[in-house]
Amino acid sequence: MKEFNFTVLKGDKKSRARRGVIKTRCGCIDTPYFVPVATMASVRALGSDDLAALNVQCILANAYYLHLKPGDELIKKLGGLHKFMALDRPIFSDSAGFQAFSLGFGREHNISKIGSIFPEGRETADKRENLTKITDEGIYFKSPYQGSWRFLDAKGSMKIQSNLGSDIIMAFDECTSPLSDYDYTKKAMVRTHEWATRSLKYHDKKQAIYGIIQGGWFEDLRQESTEFITSLPFEGIAIGGSLGNSKSDMHQVLEWVIPNLDDRPRHLLGIGEIDDVFECVERGIDTFDCVAPTRLARRGNVFISPESGGKPENKFRISIKSPRYKEDKKPIDPGCNCPTCQKYSRAYLRHLYTVNELSYFRLASVHNLYFMFGLMEQIRVSITNGTFSRLKKKWLKKS
Amino acid sequence: MKEFNFTVLKGDKKSRARRGVIKTRCGCIDTPYFVPVATMASVRALGSDDLAALNVQCILANAYYLHLKPGDELIKKLGGLHKFMALDRPIFSDSAGFQAFSLGFGREHNISKIGSIFPEGRETADKRENLTKITDEGIYFKSPYQGSWRFLDAKGSMKIQSNLGSDIIMAFDECTSPLSDYDYTKKAMVRTHEWATRSLKYHDKKQAIYGIIQGGWFEDLRQESTEFITSLPFEGIAIGGSLGNSKSDMHQVLEWVIPNLDDRPRHLLGIGEIDDVFECVERGIDTFDCVAPTRLARRGNVFISPESGGKPENKFRISIKSPRYKEDKKPIDPGCNCPTCQKYSRAYLRHLYTVNELSYFRLASVHNLYFMFGLMEQIRVSITNGTFSRLKKKWLKKS
Repeated sequence: MKEFNFTVLKGDKKSRARRGVIKTRCGCIDTPYFVPVATMASVRALGSDDLAALNVQCILANAYYLHLKPGDELIKKLGGLHKFMALDRPIFSDSAGFQAFSLGFGREHNISKIGSIFPEGRETADKRENLTKITDEGIYFKSPYQGSWRFLDAKGSMKIQSNLGSDIIMAFDECTSPLSDYDYTKKAMVRTHEWATRSLKYHDKKQAIYGIIQGGWFEDLRQESTEFITSLPFEGIAIGGSLGNSKSDMHQVLEWVIPNLDDRPRHLLGIGEIDDVFECVERGIDTFDCVAPTRLARRGNVFISPESGGKPENKFRISIKSPRYKEDKKPIDPGCNCPTCQKYSRAYLRHLYTVNELSYFRLASVHNLYFMFGLMEQIRVSITNGTFSRLKKKWLKKS
Repeated sequence: MKEFNFTVLKGDKKSRARRGVIKTRCGCIDTPYFVPVATMASVRALGSDDLAALNVQCILANAYYLHLKPGDELIKKLGGLHKFMALDRPIFSDSAGFQAFSLGFGREHNISKIGSIFPEGRETADKRENLTKITDEGIYFKSPYQGSWRFLDAKGSMKIQSNLGSDIIMAFDECTSPLSDYDYTKKAMVRTHEWATRSLKYHDKKQAIYGIIQGGWFEDLRQESTEFITSLPFEGIAIGGSLGNSKSDMHQVLEWVIPNLDDRPRHLLGIGEIDDVFECVERGIDTFDCVAPTRLARRGNVFISPESGGKPENKFRISIKSPRYKEDKKPIDPGCNCPTCQKYSRAYLRHLYTVNELSYFRLASVHNLYFMFGLMEQIRVSITNGTFSRLKKKWLKKS
């Protein structure tokens, strides 16, 4: 018997925001929740001991990268991903569909799934090589390690995710680009639907599986995809990219899709800046995953709350490398109770960052994740108390 | 009043090994002890929270590097090194004398203080530029950050170490090369003696200060230096390089020096592989500092005890990157109780190393330091029990 259920505990009266709990075979997830990404079986710079200390409720691992290294067969042999990375919490895995985009079109055109230039894009577009080829059968990937081409289809993705032993898996899909036209996006969507059916057929029946709605930034495609994916017996529904060319495009996509969803849990793939959290929760998203908090931390951008000067204009961040923090004895966020803020000053963290000390990456990542988890907790409480819109206003009001 | 004393609790009957306790204004250090190096106010890859969890008794910071970044004046302004790095344990600082060698002659000739090629030397000798110039007055250093030349003398070194607020400071000295001839080594020693006197004059009287014995690998110079340095009212005695061209040269230096020392605590600068620990403790060393355990960890070399196959031939290490550990579910050392071994397998650590995950560096460094601290504890207990030579034999017997 599959152990999975989702209960909505409370809905917001003024919006689609809802508080709930996802029960998996490996523990519960209070929603709305931000899911940290452990691409290669490690949330970058953090040990599973750090994750436990942060009371992380779940993580998301990457099927494609773990298939390449160390190999999903090996992880299976070692007892599965929970045992491998020593984390006794629910694990999501993605299906490799996003890599079809990020290593392919996105890489070639140096764009992210909502149309912006990849912040990490140091190479120029013309230097980047498309590392994928997609057919109706599946996706050919060029391994960044071995340089050889590998093929992945729905059946293969299900096998990999079964080997990983994650608790919540994703159907195999094709994530398209904001630059894809209607015809291509439709073609990819039809493919994704076919692969959804195959994923359901081939997936490990002990794992909960989410179907992925595609359709790009085209209303009729999103509606068609919503109708099709929700007609299948998935345990949950994920919304995949492309999500248009801007944040308001992304909100539009959510408004096309979510009103037509039923009570299954809803996951938004790859989104998670502070303002996104409010906008997506308000529109009815239960969980989302994103590398942003830890990636931002590694690049010197650490979160501060409104009480400490965080606002939409500064994206709730300070840049710890700024000379203004050279003599600053305060913690990153004076109101924060995270292990980093309890112990270290901005001046010390700035020093570690400046001289490239490895300890910096962990301390900053701990803070940013703690911050995200605290924000999600505030949001959950506000939904229970009927004060979500007030909380959102407090955070997102322009100054 | 200066808070510093050293008590010998027990001497080994068969050797000069001794168990003692150094009492500083910031806590006690049980000796013999291995002092981890926090060059830039961070034991590389570890937070001070990790050090506290490892129950570290003290660390050694680098006056020269902290003078350059973030600046000792700034550290003073922020309340001193303890507060800056959030570590409530005794802190040693060195005087920058070793940088006179490592950035100068050592860099130019790509050699370490006991004559071996720097393991990290990826550049060839001819590409390396001498970054120091030494006169009787002091040392000119070329800053690796700003590229400008800076001057440091005994008075300046004392000022820097006073600003850092470390508990145990080192007299300003010139560390010579194993390639230096008798005349040069003598000249440097005479200089070091003059600087020792000046260091005593100018140092912060609230800090305990160790004098440094130099004289290279020349018996009469070592004896002369021992006589001179011990004649001065230092709280402790350090032995500096050059220590010759091999480990047995180093043992020889210790045998020239140590029998002529009194009961003050003895520190050996920059030494600390597993076999060194036994050889140096046996010859009467109380403390030593070395980057080796953490540097080795970062390069994939992690310690194992004799019970797990560690022996002189493998330098008590396994190379975690080896394919043989690909499927190995065991911890690094099955007998180890460190946080890393309690949680993670060799297979997982190998994976993290292979894909260059940042979390690897911390987990491996935690293990290697825990291992060193455990070894020192075993050594201390063995001295108390009169079984030091048996313990040494057990570890160092060739198989």
